[in-house]
Amino acid sequence: MKCIRCDREAVYFRVYSGEAYCARHFASSIEDKVRATIRRYRMLDIDDRIAVGVSGGKDSLTLLRILVKIERSFPKAKLYAVTIDEGIEGYRRESIELASREASKLGVEHIVVSFRELYGLTLDLMVEEARRRNLKLTPCSICGVLRRKALNYTAVRIGANKLATAHNLDDEAQTFVVNILHGDLFRLIRTKPVTDRREGFVQRIKPLREIPEKEIALYAYLESIEFQSEPCPYRGLSLRNDVRVFLNTLEEKHPGIKFTVVRIWDNIRSTIEKDLPQVELRTCRVCGDPSISDVCSGCSILAALGLKDIEV
Amino acid sequence: MKCIRCDREAVYFRVYSGEAYCARHFASSIEDKVRATIRRYRMLDIDDRIAVGVSGGKDSLTLLRILVKIERSFPKAKLYAVTIDEGIEGYRRESIELASREASKLGVEHIVVSFRELYGLTLDLMVEEARRRNLKLTPCSICGVLRRKALNYTAVRIGANKLATAHNLDDEAQTFVVNILHGDLFRLIRTKPVTDRREGFVQRIKPLREIPEKEIALYAYLESIEFQSEPCPYRGLSLRNDVRVFLNTLEEKHPGIKFTVVRIWDNIRSTIEKDLPQVELRTCRVCGDPSISDVCSGCSILAALGLKDIEV
Repeated sequence: MKCIRCDREAVYFRVYSGEAYCARHFASSIEDKVRATIRRYRMLDIDDRIAVGVSGGKDSLTLLRILVKIERSFPKAKLYAVTIDEGIEGYRRESIELASREASKLGVEHIVVSFRELYGLTLDLMVEEARRRNLKLTPCSICGVLRRKALNYTAVRIGANKLATAHNLDDEAQTFVVNILHGDLFRLIRTKPVTDRREGFVQRIKPLREIPEKEIALYAYLESIEFQSEPCPYRGLSLRNDVRVFLNTLEEKHPGIKFTVVRIWDNIRSTIEKDLPQVELRTCRVCGDPSISDVCSGCSILAALGLKDIEV
Repeated sequence: MKCIRCDREAVYFRVYSGEAYCARHFASSIEDKVRATIRRYRMLDIDDRIAVGVSGGKDSLTLLRILVKIERSFPKAKLYAVTIDEGIEGYRRESIELASREASKLGVEHIVVSFRELYGLTLDLMVEEARRRNLKLTPCSICGVLRRKALNYTAVRIGANKLATAHNLDDEAQTFVVNILHGDLFRLIRTKPVTDRREGFVQRIKPLREIPEKEIALYAYLESIEFQSEPCPYRGLSLRNDVRVFLNTLEEKHPGIKFTVVRIWDNIRSTIEKDLPQVELRTCRVCGDPSISDVCSGCSILAALGLKDIEV
């Protein structure tokens, strides 16, 4: 099969669109798609200071690589790579090194912030402590909340006004279905390609949300990006994992179904959004971060683990 | 384990609510739930003429049995059992007999209408014809549209103002997820527990939409309802079937998830509904039924099968 853009032999056939690509044009099709996504959702301005969350996996390193390419046309913009070191023995060190090497190759400043310095304990020790205290906190629920808090904290600290994360199409489709299965209409509406501008929160953007995970993996491979390929040891048998398997099975039979799911989510969100009142943000009385409740979820977790005192 | 309502031994433990029931109180809990569903969505008035779609399976025979019990308190209301004989060799005859026997036992008039008399061919022959003509029509897509048309036609003919169908909680949860996967926001909003009142369409109601399929099966068994237990020979490996398996797997792990899904559907629907303009109904220029397009989907199928002429 030939590439649809040149005479070279194709290396990839995109089932859902019927297009075949050579390596070069496959890569540029991905970059074009990211540019289009950024435009479509107005994710970036010409003079943004963009913190990119870089774990060292294929998605985040691909995001960093593509954003560096895109931002070359915007000399007033600035990129930072931010890695959160949760403290996961035998897993995280390698990915930090990979992130560091890639950032330095691309000429991007790399900032590493650890759970230990921010919260006093590594994730491994938090998980142990949660078990000892019989808390109903899974490793993923601790990590998800505290990693987001750490990313926002770091982005604020370095003066970034955008925080780019590498959520891909698969992540987005899964998140929507998980929210449906949790019956969580609030989160379904509030989770957006670009979060609202709110005091104390750096706007989060997801430039890869229209790229299937499989295509990011191929891009990373073709572009010789060295990434951490081992999955996180805590990745468990969660509801999200069942949803992931389900959507992958369906995508095989009905190519394009993940796009369909993300599209109907966008439709539902934009239709409902205007009917819901803007939630008033308060200030967490422990850390001062914006929060929908008196104490933010990060501080609640830290308090449950005995890492913070909350006066009643 | 004891029944939560009396001292008898329990025969069923409802995982999602933590309640155990003896046979008698299980049955009354189901009947109460149906009553509550009818009230919640204002499905019935005291003087309705209700056509009940009765296929002869466990769901529809259970629905008929419960509606007869409920309607005893409403002497001005009247029930009819309507069976559509699609013409499926080796399958439909038994269920018609079962429906007939149950209706006569309950003192309900039973009306049988066949595809053959209404449309000129049995479903079996339509499926054959569709194959011969290389049409992209699955047996289920032909049957679904034409059965609904036949039910509405019959309900109108006998002067019914309500048409009750036996869709259960599982069906409803599946329908929502299927519509999500099809990206069909229109159908997602338009499919309701009670359809709108519209000229030419008898209002459709779903009194079993809050009862899990498993509990209907147990009710039918405990009440000694004789039903057709063989599945339809055309029941294929559709998207809906994948969704059914997925939701059943999840329900095992997270009891109550089907309720959650139906509830968020209700929330999304009621929030979006008021933002969407009422679709204007036209009259199908072939059969005169109300339709959103120039020719209704039933007549389009019949024309594709060569059973109706449509002038262009």
